[in-house]
Amino acid sequence: MKLKITLLFALIFSTVLLKAQDSLMLRKIYDEELVNGQCYSNLHYLCKNIGPRLSGSANAQKAVEWGKKLMESYGFDHVYLQEVMVPHWVRGAKEVGMIIDGKNKISVPIAALGMSVATPKEGITANIIEVRSLKELDTLGESVIKGKIVFFNRPFDPRFIETLRSYGTAGDQRNAGPAAAAKYGAVGVIVRSLTESLDNYPHTGATRYAQDGIKIPAAAISTKAADQLSIMLRRRKLPLIKFYFKQNCKMLPDTLSYNVVGELRGSENPNKFITVGGHLDSWDLAEGAHDDGTGVMGSVEAVRILKALGYRPKNTIRAVFFMNEENGDKGGIKYAELAAQNKEEHIAAIESDLGGFTPRGFGFTGLSVGQFKNVTAWKQLFEPYGSSRLVIGGGGSDIGPLKEKTPGIILIGFDPDSQRYFDVHHSANDVFENVNKRELELGTASIASLIYLIDQHGFN
Amino acid sequence: MKLKITLLFALIFSTVLLKAQDSLMLRKIYDEELVNGQCYSNLHYLCKNIGPRLSGSANAQKAVEWGKKLMESYGFDHVYLQEVMVPHWVRGAKEVGMIIDGKNKISVPIAALGMSVATPKEGITANIIEVRSLKELDTLGESVIKGKIVFFNRPFDPRFIETLRSYGTAGDQRNAGPAAAAKYGAVGVIVRSLTESLDNYPHTGATRYAQDGIKIPAAAISTKAADQLSIMLRRRKLPLIKFYFKQNCKMLPDTLSYNVVGELRGSENPNKFITVGGHLDSWDLAEGAHDDGTGVMGSVEAVRILKALGYRPKNTIRAVFFMNEENGDKGGIKYAELAAQNKEEHIAAIESDLGGFTPRGFGFTGLSVGQFKNVTAWKQLFEPYGSSRLVIGGGGSDIGPLKEKTPGIILIGFDPDSQRYFDVHHSANDVFENVNKRELELGTASIASLIYLIDQHGFN
Repeated sequence: MKLKITLLFALIFSTVLLKAQDSLMLRKIYDEELVNGQCYSNLHYLCKNIGPRLSGSANAQKAVEWGKKLMESYGFDHVYLQEVMVPHWVRGAKEVGMIIDGKNKISVPIAALGMSVATPKEGITANIIEVRSLKELDTLGESVIKGKIVFFNRPFDPRFIETLRSYGTAGDQRNAGPAAAAKYGAVGVIVRSLTESLDNYPHTGATRYAQDGIKIPAAAISTKAADQLSIMLRRRKLPLIKFYFKQNCKMLPDTLSYNVVGELRGSENPNKFITVGGHLDSWDLAEGAHDDGTGVMGSVEAVRILKALGYRPKNTIRAVFFMNEENGDKGGIKYAELAAQNKEEHIAAIESDLGGFTPRGFGFTGLSVGQFKNVTAWKQLFEPYGSSRLVIGGGGSDIGPLKEKTPGIILIGFDPDSQRYFDVHHSANDVFENVNKRELELGTASIASLIYLIDQHGFN
Repeated sequence: MKLKITLLFALIFSTVLLKAQDSLMLRKIYDEELVNGQCYSNLHYLCKNIGPRLSGSANAQKAVEWGKKLMESYGFDHVYLQEVMVPHWVRGAKEVGMIIDGKNKISVPIAALGMSVATPKEGITANIIEVRSLKELDTLGESVIKGKIVFFNRPFDPRFIETLRSYGTAGDQRNAGPAAAAKYGAVGVIVRSLTESLDNYPHTGATRYAQDGIKIPAAAISTKAADQLSIMLRRRKLPLIKFYFKQNCKMLPDTLSYNVVGELRGSENPNKFITVGGHLDSWDLAEGAHDDGTGVMGSVEAVRILKALGYRPKNTIRAVFFMNEENGDKGGIKYAELAAQNKEEHIAAIESDLGGFTPRGFGFTGLSVGQFKNVTAWKQLFEPYGSSRLVIGGGGSDIGPLKEKTPGIILIGFDPDSQRYFDVHHSANDVFENVNKRELELGTASIASLIYLIDQHGFN
């Protein structure tokens, strides 16, 4: 009995001690980042000295080379590139869009959707019809749609608290709308920009054609212009409102590109991995500051912090700059393939691809009930830093393929405050000036803290 | 026994039902605000059609009149003004500041601190000495300080997670620095702007002179210029760096102004009050968007939401636009005096004066242990909305005087995310464009929700 009590006390004591150590380590991580943080200035370089970096572009290659040098400059144990073939889509000359109301022509801001085909050189002019959903398109069918430009105009539902859900429920218009409209004989598609913000900027993003279907040109239109067009369509019956647009984008041959990988080698389990990453490629309309400059710069910074604090990880910690998340996911797929091929054991992967805003927490996929209980115990450690929302469900496009290729992995999505993300997402507004230094640093420190906790305690 | 069990079940059932009702009501509140919210457009009017509105100014009077009309337009049960005499300080012509390095004169952005006296017409030129604290000033004493300009240059400590604490610990330089320096014979004071942001904007704010002390002119300098000046002072020994500044501010006679009050009358306890408010006055350098346009527009909106939902409050709910928080607190003092004079029973007062950013929760002052436990039960209701950080400690300058005048009151501070507040605070950057619509709306809905919960359940 006495022994049992002694053991119990020893257990309680060691738990308390452990918690105190963790708490101390988190404080050190936040201090290092808030006092000596480098991710904000690194992001400045990426945005201003490199800039837009769509897969296959010269800037994407520059970003790869600079990213590798950056990791090397931090003295990581191993820094290398993973070859990956990526699609190479180019926008060409700026698009022209016009509402044609009889003799009146009103210029509107549009931008070709990523992967879209061009219009003929002279552009496309056709009657335009507004629909609010793919279902409505199906109801109207070929007899109504044929020969027209389809205008998808369902706005974000403002009632969702997290904007990612608004994006998710409106997103089928951009992702699948052009392919669906083509099926009914539409000649082009205009999609309301996927943002709740009422602004004058088209927000681009990839669309997916049916593999064996007809490809029709598709563009995003700014939300203000979408509202204007919608009002005109509702008011005017005859003559019908027409729309004109011209875009010059094209697909070039696939191009060799790279994921950039930097490791701190595990002192106990060098073949067990904790990955943290974001994507290095960005849309071409701006600097890819929040999408996903903050993700990649935060990932390398999280590892830098641990190294700067002299932390020797038990497992190998990897920062990964994935290539081609925006229009192909080829980097994420390649990373998972190589992981399987090299028989790596992956403990967890954290993806940061929702912007560099104040952290709220993390979402986990793959935890058992018992493991989630263990993770929940970390809430207390994150509470002083406002990053304690640890929930079931989360991940990201780049780490997703690891689920199948490295069974047993826990996928984790970093969840920053989501309110402002889609204001800038995929638009000309996604620039360095819209990133707040402290918000980025707090998020980065929270990611470094989670890596530390997983490395120390695992999930079991 | 059977009866007891029946009663127990009835109790559990009614608790569950109550919680479900509350949960439903919160959802309605958020939907009303996110779909039909008016505070963002009201804030636009306040910022763009009225603008800066320092106590005593013509714009402050305009804001009072418009604010009253706004409340009347919402059909509140009773809308009225409370007379209050306020100080009337004016900046006059824009300040001039220069670092004088031998023959080299470098212009730097400065702004007189609120309530400061002017320089002589020709300005002040004197040797300038940097100190980091009031303690350092005391150590140096009259022999070193006399005849000089004192430059307070202690930056924000970046390690605080909540920026309000950084502001709190750096704030003595602006609040008490000029009075302290005057005591040792300084001829002027330059204070590093109270922000962590490195920018070119002076951030003003009130200073307090000793009542019987000498008043010397004091100005804020931008953080970038403060860094520049500090580096010059450290590098150069002789000739000594001098500083020149000229400012034209003055105190005019106290002016009659007003708090604006709008009520929904309580159906059960008309003489019991729940107050929600912010301050209508703002500094003169910008539009007072976050400080405190979002606070006042959010307060009236919280009451509008409840009315729009047909909610009949048990207690009287009051939206208050306090006057003169920035340089005197006269509105808050008057409100408390009148509450005592009218023998009003005050249940709670909520102040929103930390900007219109994404809500994190509320801080409470005056709760007993048991009451705090009851409040903690509301966390669950706020969790889906990210506003569940309910903590001990909170309030604000405007509701503070109620503590003494209406014993038993619970003071509550609304806590939005704090990272960006001091980037704009008291500077030319505090404009409408820096407020995010959804962030403001979520905060406003969280305040309306808290009012509802207090009105329904009280704290006991």
